[in-house]
Amino acid sequence: MACPNIALIKYWGKRDERLVLPTADSLSMTLDVFSTTTTVELSPAASGDQVTLNGTEMADEPYRRVTAFLDLVRQKAGRFEAAVVDTHNTVPTGAGLASSASGFAALALAASAVYGLKLDDTELSRLARRGSGSASRSVFGGFAVWRAGQGTGDEAESSSYAEAVPTPDLDVAMVIAVVDAGPKSVSSRAAMRRTVDTSPLYWPWVESSRADLVDIRAALERGDLTAVGEIAERNALGMHATMLTARPAVRYMSPATLAVLDRVIQLRRDGILAYATMDAGPNVKVLCRSSDAQKVERALREGTSQTFIAHPGPGAFLRSGDSR
Amino acid sequence: MACPNIALIKYWGKRDERLVLPTADSLSMTLDVFSTTTTVELSPAASGDQVTLNGTEMADEPYRRVTAFLDLVRQKAGRFEAAVVDTHNTVPTGAGLASSASGFAALALAASAVYGLKLDDTELSRLARRGSGSASRSVFGGFAVWRAGQGTGDEAESSSYAEAVPTPDLDVAMVIAVVDAGPKSVSSRAAMRRTVDTSPLYWPWVESSRADLVDIRAALERGDLTAVGEIAERNALGMHATMLTARPAVRYMSPATLAVLDRVIQLRRDGILAYATMDAGPNVKVLCRSSDAQKVERALREGTSQTFIAHPGPGAFLRSGDSR
Repeated sequence: MACPNIALIKYWGKRDERLVLPTADSLSMTLDVFSTTTTVELSPAASGDQVTLNGTEMADEPYRRVTAFLDLVRQKAGRFEAAVVDTHNTVPTGAGLASSASGFAALALAASAVYGLKLDDTELSRLARRGSGSASRSVFGGFAVWRAGQGTGDEAESSSYAEAVPTPDLDVAMVIAVVDAGPKSVSSRAAMRRTVDTSPLYWPWVESSRADLVDIRAALERGDLTAVGEIAERNALGMHATMLTARPAVRYMSPATLAVLDRVIQLRRDGILAYATMDAGPNVKVLCRSSDAQKVERALREGTSQTFIAHPGPGAFLRSGDSR
Repeated sequence: MACPNIALIKYWGKRDERLVLPTADSLSMTLDVFSTTTTVELSPAASGDQVTLNGTEMADEPYRRVTAFLDLVRQKAGRFEAAVVDTHNTVPTGAGLASSASGFAALALAASAVYGLKLDDTELSRLARRGSGSASRSVFGGFAVWRAGQGTGDEAESSSYAEAVPTPDLDVAMVIAVVDAGPKSVSSRAAMRRTVDTSPLYWPWVESSRADLVDIRAALERGDLTAVGEIAERNALGMHATMLTARPAVRYMSPATLAVLDRVIQLRRDGILAYATMDAGPNVKVLCRSSDAQKVERALREGTSQTFIAHPGPGAFLRSGDSR
């Protein structure tokens, strides 16, 4: 079982596509909602893997991503049985919230256990990374930083993983405003690649994002939620700025996104701690005090299709029955 | 008389506030609508200048900007009579379209004539620049480039002026979509300064804007309106990206702005040449073929408060009666 995470310092751009090595460190909060539960069973007699998602057999590209990941696990384990993978996602359908982070974190944990790999959290995070970069962070609960690692090849492969960021008790929540459930015009993978390849502002943003990471870690350490929010919001706007300057431009912000951002500014004028972050889609996630979460949710409800309140959640864990 | 201009390569950031020296060259199209007509008369007996705008006496900061400009003209002319300035703007009230470019171009022309300065276009452009940077371009009709100039002090002062960009006959129009007539949250002067001072993406954007200028001049020379539009749109998005990354962020794009941008994308999908540019406000100006202008205007009418069609217009000119 694993939960999604929302990056406060964004992962936007790979320096190695195959090994899923990012251009910079990122930092996220793992949520306590929208968990993915994945069961892996060995199926020695089968000729290939069978993968179901919410009861429906997976095919094509999503299926191939899972079997390629299982191949990696089998190679590490030196065992080559086929598997039956059964995944249940609690992300509401059409909510436009990515489930690859929770999905690959849960799969990494269940598959490594069933193939007999005994991995510590660092090794598990490194493995999950190969399925989906942000999955490396969902191995951990609360706040986690994913290190970009250094060098190339084996050195890079082993130096890029997430780790927990210890924080004082933070009275923090995240309100998720779903503004559009339509399909994306550009996949986040393609958008990321295009930004790295064509935006003249990409590398300067990476530099500024590295500085943001140092700043937000210090803010988290001292429990300064206002600073955490300010840094997260500027980091997200910076990421979207790099996309606007990709060629052709990528714009995930819709009119409804800006309407939510306007309301977040109004909340701050009204004295409520509220800061926005957006990923590769039009939805807005608003960081606030836990005690203000319902007030924030009410303020964002109008003009949005769904809203959810989340808090810092647990890291990936194995339940009896997740693998056998 | 002078008309406003719309920058296709933006002026965003000064390297010298007092002399109004920009950080980079910019390029614009002067419009054939929204002209400003300014009459200047000497008033030797008066103790100070009298300035009216559309029949109303000006005061405070706008008045002081005009008298400071007249002081500059008087100093150059070596004559120190007070003046009566009467300005009529045809920009529809509340359209949210800046009139400082047409205003200071018209004032520079009328005031320099009445104080006996005999200025050629280059000298007039340099003078208009001191009133408002973009006014330097409204001295010229059609397309004009404003050179940033080089160095500091006198060298810089004399090397920064606009000049006409000769183009082949272009079948070009600009549809202006007014989406919001409310007052700005941040003045463009303050936003410009904040961007230069705080955005980590500002100087990289300036570099890319310099490259855009080279590209758009080549596109104008060969009459390639598609390339002109593409370059103008990416340049504008880049400018707004730098504002998003100012600290605190400046965002002039409203939900309605993005709704217009979405419609421009749809127009392109429908095979119509249409590219957007936005200045320090929520309005959108769409470059298109003259023959498509009415179709584009119809497409943008919904959700906007006013739309206008403009074409390349004349440079500043003196009519009998503008100065005496």
